[in-house]
Amino acid sequence: MRQSQLFTKTRREAPADEASKNAQLLIRAGYINKEMAGVYDYLPLGLRVLKKIENIIREEMNAIGGQEILMSSLQRPELWDKTQRWENSNVDSWFKTKLKDGADLGLAFTHEEPISNMLGQFVSSYKNLPFSVYQFQNKFRNEARAKSGIMRAREFVMKDMYSFCANYDEHRMFYEKAEEAYKRIFDKVGIGDLTYLTYASGGSFSEVSHEFQTITPAGEDTIFIREEKDYAVNKEIFDDEWKKKLNMDKFREEKAIEVGNIFNLGTKFSEALGLMYKELDGSNKPVWMGSYGIGLGRLMGTIVEVLSDEKGIVWPESVAPFKYHIVEIMSEKPEVRETAERVYKMLGENVLYDDRDLRAGEKFADADLLGMPYQIIVSEKTVAENKVELKNRGSGETGLVDENSLK
Amino acid sequence: MRQSQLFTKTRREAPADEASKNAQLLIRAGYINKEMAGVYDYLPLGLRVLKKIENIIREEMNAIGGQEILMSSLQRPELWDKTQRWENSNVDSWFKTKLKDGADLGLAFTHEEPISNMLGQFVSSYKNLPFSVYQFQNKFRNEARAKSGIMRAREFVMKDMYSFCANYDEHRMFYEKAEEAYKRIFDKVGIGDLTYLTYASGGSFSEVSHEFQTITPAGEDTIFIREEKDYAVNKEIFDDEWKKKLNMDKFREEKAIEVGNIFNLGTKFSEALGLMYKELDGSNKPVWMGSYGIGLGRLMGTIVEVLSDEKGIVWPESVAPFKYHIVEIMSEKPEVRETAERVYKMLGENVLYDDRDLRAGEKFADADLLGMPYQIIVSEKTVAENKVELKNRGSGETGLVDENSLK
Repeated sequence: MRQSQLFTKTRREAPADEASKNAQLLIRAGYINKEMAGVYDYLPLGLRVLKKIENIIREEMNAIGGQEILMSSLQRPELWDKTQRWENSNVDSWFKTKLKDGADLGLAFTHEEPISNMLGQFVSSYKNLPFSVYQFQNKFRNEARAKSGIMRAREFVMKDMYSFCANYDEHRMFYEKAEEAYKRIFDKVGIGDLTYLTYASGGSFSEVSHEFQTITPAGEDTIFIREEKDYAVNKEIFDDEWKKKLNMDKFREEKAIEVGNIFNLGTKFSEALGLMYKELDGSNKPVWMGSYGIGLGRLMGTIVEVLSDEKGIVWPESVAPFKYHIVEIMSEKPEVRETAERVYKMLGENVLYDDRDLRAGEKFADADLLGMPYQIIVSEKTVAENKVELKNRGSGETGLVDENSLK
Repeated sequence: MRQSQLFTKTRREAPADEASKNAQLLIRAGYINKEMAGVYDYLPLGLRVLKKIENIIREEMNAIGGQEILMSSLQRPELWDKTQRWENSNVDSWFKTKLKDGADLGLAFTHEEPISNMLGQFVSSYKNLPFSVYQFQNKFRNEARAKSGIMRAREFVMKDMYSFCANYDEHRMFYEKAEEAYKRIFDKVGIGDLTYLTYASGGSFSEVSHEFQTITPAGEDTIFIREEKDYAVNKEIFDDEWKKKLNMDKFREEKAIEVGNIFNLGTKFSEALGLMYKELDGSNKPVWMGSYGIGLGRLMGTIVEVLSDEKGIVWPESVAPFKYHIVEIMSEKPEVRETAERVYKMLGENVLYDDRDLRAGEKFADADLLGMPYQIIVSEKTVAENKVELKNRGSGETGLVDENSLK
């Protein structure tokens, strides 16, 4: 894409009311726009990142057999009354609204109830199990405070997967596949090294849940990491009993953000919503459920928090809006533009081309702020040597290379 | 995909409260689920159709230079007060809700106000114009009645594009490109022959707007088509003056559904929201805007209304969940399964394979209801001739073909 055509521009300052590093950088770079606290628009470059994250997750969900659906945001109270999750005294994050006839509706903050209810028409026998469904769906949560940028939004796209099994053993098998898929996702988006499978409270669901926590000072949680590094425990459950249970003699304390979670739901929702199946012996049993969430905006915000530097964002190639950023240093010599145009055409969809009539300093500052993994600098100097300069945004390494080596 | 793995099943009857043909067929075929009147979930096959429609539209929007974004559903009243569109007395389709501190919020039914406001930070000069942005975004409309299935939903994915030009002439040039893009979209999804560019009321926007109306008895509008067939006029504005103006001596009356619209917004929103630019002569002028909408669910519902038959849905290849549906007629002879499996593997992603242990009659009924464009029947009879039977769902034509000819 030609940068002269992109309607967004970078800016020096983030809005005064924006306290979080992720939103400050993303707003300054023109990736997102702030509608209000906790509510953000995704602009062209930001949406490209979000879609790349979505596709990485989709690939992994499909690989473990997930079937993609799209549930509604608007929800009837009846289904949520069955699990006592309609009343504000039990769930305090509802946004509620009304139909014209005065009937109450809610905006879904999750989908266990409607999905269990919907599946009642399709599940009848053990032969229908196991299976799993997932969606990328816009969730609403009426957060009292929203100060973490896109890491804790009032409206956000979430990937929520739900699994449906005959019993606990079958559930465990799927659960382990999902855990591995999650690890691959966090590896692929570039935060695998900083992300720990973490034992946490099961909330209203179960005794314990698994979170994936990524170490960052911007995190809202505190975790205790076992030195051998294979897992951590959330402070909320970290007592002597858990220490003993997990054999944690040595551990280090870190701030971290929850980038994913996995809940063993058991039969809580299937019993309440009547999602039953007939066993081989003819008996009726409730389906064993699990749920598996990743907030896409939160993941994007976390990547920015942990991988940016003082100059701006540093995207991993897997989620960068573009792999390459051509920085053309304006010149009277036609060969400079010709070379930049030729490289732009050669690289196709995967390149942002700064063809704007701006000073070199401004272009470099923008390229660093925007954070494409590789900058391709085309100037009189490089053209004289019949080369282009390739710069790695993350490491800062540069070198003159043959343009054809970029293919 | 193996049909035995698909969690949805077909059903004989639609819910008693579902009056529309499109939703009846889509529910019976397991494409959608009804949450409540006017609110539907998209199940795996339905979501595949929706995504194919989305991709067709995206391709055309990109081709005319549109930049994709994603705006929030949650909206602050302040922006809508500036155009008098917050008060229920002026706009009666709001769903409204509240933040915890009691502040009012609305769920967007369109995005002229926030998009004009957001662009204020990026547009300053005539050099920034023209450009256009679009999104696939979940809209909310508090419809008093919702009896047309997915053709008039209370929550639905809409493609809304907005154009930003320096003046009316520049606007006209973009407007015409958008009109052509819309025609290509309706052609590609298979309803081009039944769809007319229609003069209609501009609503609160302008004197006149352009609608794309598709002829169907399920339509909520009445249009008068000029016999030469190049355009129509909506009954709402069809008076003697319009007849004369458009030189319509002969016309025929039809029921039709609005599948797309184009509004010349002029400077109504840019003036109200302060979206100004500096002209070459240094003067400040409001940006000239247009908006261009297509409801994806409505388009999908319209395709079902106009292309289905008494046996079920007939998808055009461009939007079908799968191009092929393999119907394996169960047999003791291993060659039948072997052939079906071989063809399934050969055709890859683009085939639904009915590998279920069911009678032939049930499989045929399901294949006709689901509506893939081509059925591939594999039976003892076809295997004996070293062929498969290829059936065109729309025309009913069948013939024995070599399996390799399907590649």
